[in-house]
Amino acid sequence: MLTREHCLAADASDELAGLRQQFRLPQDVIYLDGNSLGVLPQAAEERSLQVLRAEWGEGLIRSWNTAGWFELPRRLGNKLAGLIGAGSDEVVITDTTSLNIFKALAAAIRIQQQAAPQRKVIVSERDNFPTDLYMIQGMMDLLQQGYEMRLIDDSLPLEQALNEDVAVLLLSHVNYRTGAMHDMAAVTAQARRHGALTIWDLAHAAGAVPVDLNASEADFAVGCTYKYLNGGPGSPAFIWVAARHQDRFWQPLSGWWGHSRPFDMAADYQPAHGIRRFLCGTQPILSMALVECGLDATLQTSMTALREKSLALTDLFIQLVEQRCAHHPLTLITPRNHAQRGSHVSYRHPQGYAVMQALIARGVIGDYREPEVLRFGITPLYLRHVDVWDAVETLRDILDGANWDQPQFQQRHAVT
Amino acid sequence: MLTREHCLAADASDELAGLRQQFRLPQDVIYLDGNSLGVLPQAAEERSLQVLRAEWGEGLIRSWNTAGWFELPRRLGNKLAGLIGAGSDEVVITDTTSLNIFKALAAAIRIQQQAAPQRKVIVSERDNFPTDLYMIQGMMDLLQQGYEMRLIDDSLPLEQALNEDVAVLLLSHVNYRTGAMHDMAAVTAQARRHGALTIWDLAHAAGAVPVDLNASEADFAVGCTYKYLNGGPGSPAFIWVAARHQDRFWQPLSGWWGHSRPFDMAADYQPAHGIRRFLCGTQPILSMALVECGLDATLQTSMTALREKSLALTDLFIQLVEQRCAHHPLTLITPRNHAQRGSHVSYRHPQGYAVMQALIARGVIGDYREPEVLRFGITPLYLRHVDVWDAVETLRDILDGANWDQPQFQQRHAVT
Repeated sequence: MLTREHCLAADASDELAGLRQQFRLPQDVIYLDGNSLGVLPQAAEERSLQVLRAEWGEGLIRSWNTAGWFELPRRLGNKLAGLIGAGSDEVVITDTTSLNIFKALAAAIRIQQQAAPQRKVIVSERDNFPTDLYMIQGMMDLLQQGYEMRLIDDSLPLEQALNEDVAVLLLSHVNYRTGAMHDMAAVTAQARRHGALTIWDLAHAAGAVPVDLNASEADFAVGCTYKYLNGGPGSPAFIWVAARHQDRFWQPLSGWWGHSRPFDMAADYQPAHGIRRFLCGTQPILSMALVECGLDATLQTSMTALREKSLALTDLFIQLVEQRCAHHPLTLITPRNHAQRGSHVSYRHPQGYAVMQALIARGVIGDYREPEVLRFGITPLYLRHVDVWDAVETLRDILDGANWDQPQFQQRHAVT
Repeated sequence: MLTREHCLAADASDELAGLRQQFRLPQDVIYLDGNSLGVLPQAAEERSLQVLRAEWGEGLIRSWNTAGWFELPRRLGNKLAGLIGAGSDEVVITDTTSLNIFKALAAAIRIQQQAAPQRKVIVSERDNFPTDLYMIQGMMDLLQQGYEMRLIDDSLPLEQALNEDVAVLLLSHVNYRTGAMHDMAAVTAQARRHGALTIWDLAHAAGAVPVDLNASEADFAVGCTYKYLNGGPGSPAFIWVAARHQDRFWQPLSGWWGHSRPFDMAADYQPAHGIRRFLCGTQPILSMALVECGLDATLQTSMTALREKSLALTDLFIQLVEQRCAHHPLTLITPRNHAQRGSHVSYRHPQGYAVMQALIARGVIGDYREPEVLRFGITPLYLRHVDVWDAVETLRDILDGANWDQPQFQQRHAVT
């Protein structure tokens, strides 16, 4: 039987334990929602004051050059690249994940229109993060060219969904709800055998699990910096494009920052060479600058070390729930197989919403996702084994402490 | 003859003079580039620390509700609305001007596809801000539906460009280079008589000149918050949609934040009622929050008062250049007619780039735009009459101090 002392001992020998000091964590909170919004890096306050006082306040317009604002999307993209198996100048930090999906999807569709115009199906997953599906729907509705969306689910596995009609496969590497992870290399190879291009959404993968885009021979990837990468609320997202695709065409969100010579003020758009053409309009510099603080904290270790600790903590969470909450109707929906698990753990509970509200009231912050899902994000940069113990113990106490079959617990509410 | 003492006297009786205290301006700089990047409001530092420490650091994911992040695009949009003649819940702060042009353009094209599908021409101005033209080009290239762009210029005036083929007229209210301003109501009425929908780019108008979108019966407007509104580098832009259009269709950048019930996590996109459907992905909260500081400073006065001072200062600038620099080859390209003038003053000079570099080196920060254009932005919130005097005096001194026909001054460089 595991005990709290086992957890304290594991923390004492944890080589990553010192990284917790890189972040400013609230008192009396166990934060298990870093997969929704990461925490505040210690360096962020000083960096934000530097941007405000020196770069904006004093430097003003000159800071586009002197403070490196113009190079920020690419410079930070290059910092991120190593965490996702991307090469130099293959990633930019920009816009939002939704918008970057639109760009990647447009680019993939254009490649297929030239190579195999009969391909009119975009495959995704019914349980994909909804915005990914919404962006596909928006694109199809705009194009009016007979594209259709085909969603894989229990009744339609991927191998049946892929055929000679498929143009693009758009999947999340790690599922936002269940924490289930696809084998990126295998799925990409499977798609390629069927002639489909792949777009990977790394929102719940970047900084959470090892990703190797180039080794997987993926085509496009997008993702967010405000979850496991601790970039700050709504910090700009990223887009990666395989080098072989970057110069083949425009993407349609062709704003000034993607122009080859933006300061010529020419009336005709000429895309920049390489990944810069995936930039569009002026970026929110302050929110973008803080992305670097989170990246720098992560770059103090390796994805290998982070993955090892992440699996240890998610294993621990699962074991403790089995050991201490076995008599409650919690159904694990996250895969036990390491190769299929991301960095969060999810359970269904018939009164999931009310249980999560009770946990949050006691300072254990996870989140709730329809339907009935309690979601616990595990960020190894700042979580300890003892945090997992204390969180599960609070869960046990809450579940033991009420008759959860009573009607007042049955109501559901949408939560942010 | 005007003197520096006249300027000091004008400042002494200036009812807006106190507003300068709302901003933190660098020492030894006369900042005439607020039409490119506005200045730092005093309130921004405290607000940014509040977002970092309390909202992100302590509140974490809870701040989506408790700190009002979810309502921020709409709440700030409502604050902006009064400055541009928009109604309540008709504006949201979101994304970039370029992206908002894409949304408005898609929406306008969709309306025309239903009402008058033979209309396939998008009219804009050859001298429009280039990103506006680039976004039109990106849209046409994506749609592949036979749309074409028609640009008005000296050889093709607006009245000749408008006919029964025109779907959309996309214009900047104030030209970024010359400072020339269109008569929004007259041009909108002219477009409507020809059956065209209008999209107004207010980048150089919002906070700079009185704008009355609803009275003008315009259809769509976009604009930026980091110029005259002092929102900070790259702060999110805005989009306004006439209430009569808001519920007619999707816009194609249909991300989660525009969904009617985003937390249901439904697989099908259902647009929210009203302006919220023009939101897409997760916004950069820190950069967005600071927009409020600039707005609050502007809302301490009225656009009428700001306009009066703006015209006084641009008149003064023009007079002083005539009075003190008459022997130099400066060509005013900004209209003298108040009704056609925005809030900046521009001159061509054969060695414009080198002259502007010399001005900046002396602390008079305007900017240079191809071809040969010296641009001086006049923001009445924080500029004084004596600043205009001192700026023109520095210009005179620079022009008098060198033989500007020498070859070393003839080179040009792109500037940011």
